[in-house]
Amino acid sequence: MAVRIVHIHVKPEHLEEFLDMTRRNHEGSIREPGNVRFDVLRSMDDPTRFVLYEWYATDEAAAAHRETPHYQAWVARAGEWLVEPRHADAYEVVLPEI
Amino acid sequence: MAVRIVHIHVKPEHLEEFLDMTRRNHEGSIREPGNVRFDVLRSMDDPTRFVLYEWYATDEAAAAHRETPHYQAWVARAGEWLVEPRHADAYEVVLPEI
Repeated sequence: MAVRIVHIHVKPEHLEEFLDMTRRNHEGSIREPGNVRFDVLRSMDDPTRFVLYEWYATDEAAAAHRETPHYQAWVARAGEWLVEPRHADAYEVVLPEI
Repeated sequence: MAVRIVHIHVKPEHLEEFLDMTRRNHEGSIREPGNVRFDVLRSMDDPTRFVLYEWYATDEAAAAHRETPHYQAWVARAGEWLVEPRHADAYEVVLPEI
C-alpha cells in the first residue's frame, strides 16, 4: 500500500490545458482496478501549484498506471507545462487499513 | 472542500506513543460527520517522518475537528514527540467532485 504525493508547478499560460488533461488522467485513473485515491489539489497560497495524491493498492497497480493511455497522454505534455520538473515523495499507508 | 497536508517529524524514542495516539486520533476523526479522508502516511525514506492527509467537507467541520477529545489529546502530547514543530500546507480540492 503506497502513496505518492506529487508536487507540480504549472506555467500560468498552460493552466487551462493542465487542468483539462489532469481531469482526463483523474477520470481514467480512478477506474483502474488497483487505484484507491487519485485526488487533485490546488495550493491555497499559489494557484499555479498543485498536488496529485495517488494511492495504489500494489506496486503492480502503480506500475500499470504508468502504462495507461490517460497517464501517457498526460506525461507527454507535462514537460511543456511545468515551471520546474515535478517531484514526488513516497509513503507507506499506516491508516486506514483497507 | 479543503485538504491539509501535515508534515510531522517524530523523535525515535516517541514513535510507539505517537503511533498509538495517532491511531486513536484517526479512529475518532473518520467518525466525524464532515470528515472525508484522514490518512496517516509514513515516509519510505525516513521512518520518523509522517504525513497526515486531512480532508474536511467544510471549514466548520475542520474547526469542529480541533475541538474533539481525540484531537485535543493528540495535540496535547505532540510537542513532546516532535523533532521540530509540525507544519501544514492547505489546498482546495479540484478532484474528485463529491
